[in-house]
Amino acid sequence: MRKVEVITQILNANDLTARENQALLKDHHILTVNLMASPGAGKTSLILQTAKALAGRARLGVIEGDVASRIDADKVASADIPVIQINTGGECHLDALTVQKALKTLPLAEIDILVIENVGNLICPVEYRLGEAIRVVVASVPEGDDKPYKYPGIFTAVDAVVLNKIDLAPYVDFNRDAMREGVVRLNPRATIFELSCRTGEGLRTWADWLESRWKNL
Amino acid sequence: MRKVEVITQILNANDLTARENQALLKDHHILTVNLMASPGAGKTSLILQTAKALAGRARLGVIEGDVASRIDADKVASADIPVIQINTGGECHLDALTVQKALKTLPLAEIDILVIENVGNLICPVEYRLGEAIRVVVASVPEGDDKPYKYPGIFTAVDAVVLNKIDLAPYVDFNRDAMREGVVRLNPRATIFELSCRTGEGLRTWADWLESRWKNL
Repeated sequence: MRKVEVITQILNANDLTARENQALLKDHHILTVNLMASPGAGKTSLILQTAKALAGRARLGVIEGDVASRIDADKVASADIPVIQINTGGECHLDALTVQKALKTLPLAEIDILVIENVGNLICPVEYRLGEAIRVVVASVPEGDDKPYKYPGIFTAVDAVVLNKIDLAPYVDFNRDAMREGVVRLNPRATIFELSCRTGEGLRTWADWLESRWKNL
Repeated sequence: MRKVEVITQILNANDLTARENQALLKDHHILTVNLMASPGAGKTSLILQTAKALAGRARLGVIEGDVASRIDADKVASADIPVIQINTGGECHLDALTVQKALKTLPLAEIDILVIENVGNLICPVEYRLGEAIRVVVASVPEGDDKPYKYPGIFTAVDAVVLNKIDLAPYVDFNRDAMREGVVRLNPRATIFELSCRTGEGLRTWADWLESRWKNL
């Protein structure tokens, strides 16, 4: 039999920095979540509601990624959560180096769960590890039930799918089973949460899961 | 006074191909629209409703751009509209060369208005000309009123902004004036259309505008 040559993938610069971030965050016993979604799916609302749901149980910190503006960071800061805004200029995703800079200014000793809100985009962010422990995609009911079929890369890569804005289901055409089937087919191990940041429905289950992931870090 | 040296930007390969596409489409007296939006803003619904509104007045043709799947092209084909699906694999935008290939298989003599539905993304598509005459971004009410502030590049580059899903306004927090102000501040010459593909409200004004742009080509 011939010898099989195995080529090990060399980590790129981003992956190496992501590993450094991961080690630093682990040292601080911080659960880091890379939160990805389309523009307007409700990432910032989810962060604000999660902080409320976990009040007294776990302390949140946030890194906000946007092409431009500090709208989201201002909202988070108003809720008295430590936050850094990253503006990417034109880039469609965050990268590990920019996150590393942000980590240097965040009060890590005061944070249990760090949520990194990525740039609103279902394509680019998935290619760049940031140092996170878990990856979550937020989809929303008015976006339609076909998102897993159209953006398989991101739905395959995540640990959890949060389906937000379920309160809008009566007013739009949305096939809940088609959406769930799309996720399960791509990624059977992903946990699916259905919730509404507006009404609060389903938030507790999500927050409990996040807390248990942090406790089992 | 010193002589001022002017450096003219050399067109890149994509721009050159886009110009070829533009010339071909102009020869066929086709108005070409580069339709951009977030995932789930309603680009395909807008195409289907526009085709209905223009029935007997102008004939549509469609190029569908998606990372994966042929869901949108199937919907368009069901409405008996000539359509080509482009799957970009992982790319977050269409480019002129791929569109050029698609143009070779479309029945151009049977098309008055060609809508190129770009990949669902508010960042990458704006950097790539495809050969279009006009560029349109679709935003939707449930995405929120802050999109112009967060994605200034695309809102600055377009000829028109279509605000879709206005029927959902009573059920979400959406400040219409903030959204309009955001657009006007970046791009005072952009025409803003408010409509609902679900109820049909506002579609006629949009369709009339498109037809007049075609007639004045």
